[in-house]
Amino acid sequence: MNDYIEKNKQRFLDELFELLRIPSVSADSKFKGDVLKTAEYVKNKLTDAGADKAQLFQTAGFPIVYAEKIKDKSLPTVLVYGHYDVQPADPYDLWDSPPFEPQIRDGRIYARGACDDKGQMYMHLKALELMMQCNSLACNIKFMIEGEEEVGSNNLETFVKEQKDLLKADVILISDTGIFSNEVPSITVGLRGLSYLEVEVTGPKRDLHSGLYGGAVANPINILCELIASLKDKNNHISIPGFYDDVAELSTEERKALAGVPFSLDDYKKALDIDDVAGEAGYSTLERVSIRPTLDVNGIWGGYTGEGAKTVLPSKASAKISMRLVPNQSSKKITELFTKHFESIAPKSVKVKVKPHHGGEPAVTPTDSLAYKAASLAFEEAWGKTPVPMREGGSIPIVSLFEKELGLKTVLLGFGLDEDAIHSPNESYQVFNYFKGIETISLFYKHFAALNKK
Amino acid sequence: MNDYIEKNKQRFLDELFELLRIPSVSADSKFKGDVLKTAEYVKNKLTDAGADKAQLFQTAGFPIVYAEKIKDKSLPTVLVYGHYDVQPADPYDLWDSPPFEPQIRDGRIYARGACDDKGQMYMHLKALELMMQCNSLACNIKFMIEGEEEVGSNNLETFVKEQKDLLKADVILISDTGIFSNEVPSITVGLRGLSYLEVEVTGPKRDLHSGLYGGAVANPINILCELIASLKDKNNHISIPGFYDDVAELSTEERKALAGVPFSLDDYKKALDIDDVAGEAGYSTLERVSIRPTLDVNGIWGGYTGEGAKTVLPSKASAKISMRLVPNQSSKKITELFTKHFESIAPKSVKVKVKPHHGGEPAVTPTDSLAYKAASLAFEEAWGKTPVPMREGGSIPIVSLFEKELGLKTVLLGFGLDEDAIHSPNESYQVFNYFKGIETISLFYKHFAALNKK
Repeated sequence: MNDYIEKNKQRFLDELFELLRIPSVSADSKFKGDVLKTAEYVKNKLTDAGADKAQLFQTAGFPIVYAEKIKDKSLPTVLVYGHYDVQPADPYDLWDSPPFEPQIRDGRIYARGACDDKGQMYMHLKALELMMQCNSLACNIKFMIEGEEEVGSNNLETFVKEQKDLLKADVILISDTGIFSNEVPSITVGLRGLSYLEVEVTGPKRDLHSGLYGGAVANPINILCELIASLKDKNNHISIPGFYDDVAELSTEERKALAGVPFSLDDYKKALDIDDVAGEAGYSTLERVSIRPTLDVNGIWGGYTGEGAKTVLPSKASAKISMRLVPNQSSKKITELFTKHFESIAPKSVKVKVKPHHGGEPAVTPTDSLAYKAASLAFEEAWGKTPVPMREGGSIPIVSLFEKELGLKTVLLGFGLDEDAIHSPNESYQVFNYFKGIETISLFYKHFAALNKK
Repeated sequence: MNDYIEKNKQRFLDELFELLRIPSVSADSKFKGDVLKTAEYVKNKLTDAGADKAQLFQTAGFPIVYAEKIKDKSLPTVLVYGHYDVQPADPYDLWDSPPFEPQIRDGRIYARGACDDKGQMYMHLKALELMMQCNSLACNIKFMIEGEEEVGSNNLETFVKEQKDLLKADVILISDTGIFSNEVPSITVGLRGLSYLEVEVTGPKRDLHSGLYGGAVANPINILCELIASLKDKNNHISIPGFYDDVAELSTEERKALAGVPFSLDDYKKALDIDDVAGEAGYSTLERVSIRPTLDVNGIWGGYTGEGAKTVLPSKASAKISMRLVPNQSSKKITELFTKHFESIAPKSVKVKVKPHHGGEPAVTPTDSLAYKAASLAFEEAWGKTPVPMREGGSIPIVSLFEKELGLKTVLLGFGLDEDAIHSPNESYQVFNYFKGIETISLFYKHFAALNKK
């Protein structure tokens, strides 16, 4: 098996590079043609790898790529999910090499989507090719690769509901998360949910001269800052009424287990070049990014932001705000609580609009399932180490959707690292992890089939 | 005199339009060539109007246009100040007609600079032409028209210090302010000072994924909002220690006089489409914009501001913040107080930078001077009404510079209106005020010469 990888290394990289060159930014309509082109590319490569029935399912947004390899109906079936769209790449000037011209430097592939999720998703196509060519495929496989993950997977639910038969499987396999480090491999067993909103504060109906009106007319930027600041108290506790009502608190044992993960606060601060961490009082850094909900402003804008000085009292100011949610918070409920609260605290001197962007539910996956065990054994065989079960801070909202609609649990077999800087300038993915991932994924099928036989 | 204006109306407008067509945005280096072109235009038009020695004085920035008409050394000399640069015009999409393609609609000239200050400055050139052609010039005139007023007049001080002889005069005359309304003409006798700064908050050294780091790493946007919100208390009192120490409080009589100016809060709110005004507790709207200092955020930016949703925890967030000052506050001292305070309140989890942009001192002009009386008589003759002395919220920092360096008082003979929307999209200037201003300015010279003879 490793021979096959070794022999085809260059081609495996070339194909990924070709995929990375297409700027499939789903959030920005000017890339629409490229997103569609990417779907075609993935479809064709699935066929090349040995899958049958590769096709595009049209949706109200971007198409979903489907393919399958049904070897024997009596074998267990694994449904692979991934996404071919990527985050916007701006600010472009912070990239050391252009985001859509992949480059290898120091053993890392630099490109938007190198890790999230093109690099991780494409490992599954190459694992299929490998198992087909080595005649080692021990399960049936189905692929469902979407193009709207970075904008909230708005059309996936309809597709999943309509295609329940087609998507029948025993487990879902996703590589869109990370491991703790290459020395401490881990499997993500918990994911935070998400509620993402955009707020707009309007003061006077037109931009005013701040000298002539300043002091007498509410400035929407100042008000927006005050509203945002009021969303947390000085302990960094979120002050939206009801926000913590449904939060599942961890037991002392669970918190102890989490504290056992090797973690150096000094290294963490050094890597980010910060003098201090900051977060909710009473919780450790690892807890703050995994078992606790958060509220972050992801973007803010208003008034004059060009060169020099303009003395304007602007008409509007806006912000994009997202909250990460933990079991058992509901994205829908939190979005409603936020909206109601934000509207209620706005002073009469301004008007506020709150627009929900998208959301997703938090999810936890069980460690006693056959699929988790198969993933753990695959790691042991490929990496020589038993992986640690970990909760991760990011959101893959579709995990709870799959559970609800298809009744399937998900195994998060991701190989990313913190240093990959996904969603940031200079996103990258280690060449080592790309090939090691292909190997681990292939071994997963072997162990999953074996465990199912017992 | 009015015959001459009547006969030349179209040309007076055409020449102003030609001036307005040149986008002399001093804050944005891409307009550098246009700013220089504007200086040339003003110089040539001064010669055309009948001035001698029209020339450009080079500075470290944009040139200062100088010209003079010395009729008789025994006559009083008036030094006219104005500026040929304009504010940036963005956001362009909010303009009903392009900012640098002047258009008359409903008796108003729409263009960036129509009022501030090209329209008002150019009235002085046409007043000179009129007095030359009608042989009625009763004073000596000097012109000093600069190109950096909108970016802080950084090189004017050096010029004024170096050219004290050249600039010798009895009074300074500026049209860069407004009147209360065409029914209630007024003369500005007080101006607020300005302290303008830019702040930058840096958290982690690169943009992070808010799902993986959110909750544990300080978000510079959230922190910036908290810092800004903390700059005012709930009474909208500015909380920078020492900020109010030097503020000159008005006497009960002065506040009463101010309250006597006709002002409808309902009309004010309606014109701005706001449900309520907001400002410092204990002061009226007119007081808040004239005799009280303020703090406004003029621009804010950070994180993802494009279409859709990006879950980023950004590395940096920035804001432009300005404070309007009243007698006897010092721009330099307030800039220092702000900087010290802002740096002191920043948490250890972020780094902050404070960069001063520009400032200017507050000023009050006396109503018992010959020049004020001449201006008042000119208004009476041209408008049929005695003008009201008023304090205005805007800043013309050079007024205190002139007093300090040249020992000269300034008369602010402005003709703008609130509706002119200077510094905003759709800036305009009434055609009526343009011609009425030319008339009033010409009459000012007559009365100033007469009063000086007595």
